[in-house]
Amino acid sequence: MRVRHKPWAKDLIAQHPEWVITDPYDQKGHWHEIFANDHPIHVEVGTGKGQFLIEMAKTYPEINFIGIEMISDVLVMALQKAMETELSNLRFIRGDGNHVSDMFAHDEVSEIYLNFSDPWPKKRHAKRRLTHENFLKQYQDILKAEGRLIFKTDNQGLFEYSLTSLSHYGMVLDDVSLDLHNSGVTDNIMTEYEAKFSQKGQRIYRLIAHFKN
Amino acid sequence: MRVRHKPWAKDLIAQHPEWVITDPYDQKGHWHEIFANDHPIHVEVGTGKGQFLIEMAKTYPEINFIGIEMISDVLVMALQKAMETELSNLRFIRGDGNHVSDMFAHDEVSEIYLNFSDPWPKKRHAKRRLTHENFLKQYQDILKAEGRLIFKTDNQGLFEYSLTSLSHYGMVLDDVSLDLHNSGVTDNIMTEYEAKFSQKGQRIYRLIAHFKN
Repeated sequence: MRVRHKPWAKDLIAQHPEWVITDPYDQKGHWHEIFANDHPIHVEVGTGKGQFLIEMAKTYPEINFIGIEMISDVLVMALQKAMETELSNLRFIRGDGNHVSDMFAHDEVSEIYLNFSDPWPKKRHAKRRLTHENFLKQYQDILKAEGRLIFKTDNQGLFEYSLTSLSHYGMVLDDVSLDLHNSGVTDNIMTEYEAKFSQKGQRIYRLIAHFKN
Repeated sequence: MRVRHKPWAKDLIAQHPEWVITDPYDQKGHWHEIFANDHPIHVEVGTGKGQFLIEMAKTYPEINFIGIEMISDVLVMALQKAMETELSNLRFIRGDGNHVSDMFAHDEVSEIYLNFSDPWPKKRHAKRRLTHENFLKQYQDILKAEGRLIFKTDNQGLFEYSLTSLSHYGMVLDDVSLDLHNSGVTDNIMTEYEAKFSQKGQRIYRLIAHFKN
């Protein structure tokens, strides 16, 4: 996602440790203490401007949501949106999805969302795709046994790649939708990007999968 | 597939045992004798009017192809087309795909094709779909360890179902195309149905999968 550079972004993020956890590695295994409850934890890797996770947090108050976003100029937009709410079940991490197993303990997470991740279409960049086995290994580590991975994209190539990547890793597909917005699914919460592209008639793909144990 | 009833179909089929094997259960484990060679055997379940398999047989003379079709009025159209050729690597079976493990021995088959199978959209008919686990069990039995299942359809619901059904059965997806005719694949041989529907701009879905052993 390309966004305008915001020189003030890092400062604003640093000023709001109640929203953006500054020491995520120290929280590994202790996220329940931050939320002061033992509700399930759902993590979005690549949370972007935050609309999806904020709506999820409003809709499901009994679930704790954590959004990871690498780019401060993007994360700050999620932060500003979150600050307009009083949500207590939402936090952000400025960090790299490639380090999730350093941020969360084994079995600490109940669900992982990947929404409209960068497709990295060139083959030599395949390792950067969030459904590459290097990432799957980490998701498997932090997800509970019954935990699910929920992945949405409008990118056909990334979706095709992801189906085979997950399958080769040994994951089981529980649900696949090849046109989510015309599938009768009624509880889908959209990202900014999803709302824009589905209005243009672009198909949205979604899969739900779990790891075999 | 609805076709006009042909009262003469069964007679014509019976008159051509060199094309349509009349006793497929007796051939179990002995198909190489019919072809008088030990080339790999590829089976199409639901061969319809035969265009796909006849083209495959022309293109790959070192492979033996067997098409199974239940409906005589349909199979006879494949037979008539085959009779215009001199192909020695092609045979047909009038029979039910649900009995393939009675027709072929363990490990006797190298590839199975399912092309534009009946989608049976009603949930109560799921067991009739050729990618239901009851069929997968039989495919697993007759396919060699490195054998592949290749499935094409234009039916989105059937393709979604098949991805999850294969995955839950423990199959591994080697390749998925969500728009085969715009994917750069150049060696795709089309069925009658596929040619017609892809011309109308309908997407063709394809998956290639294998069983874990």
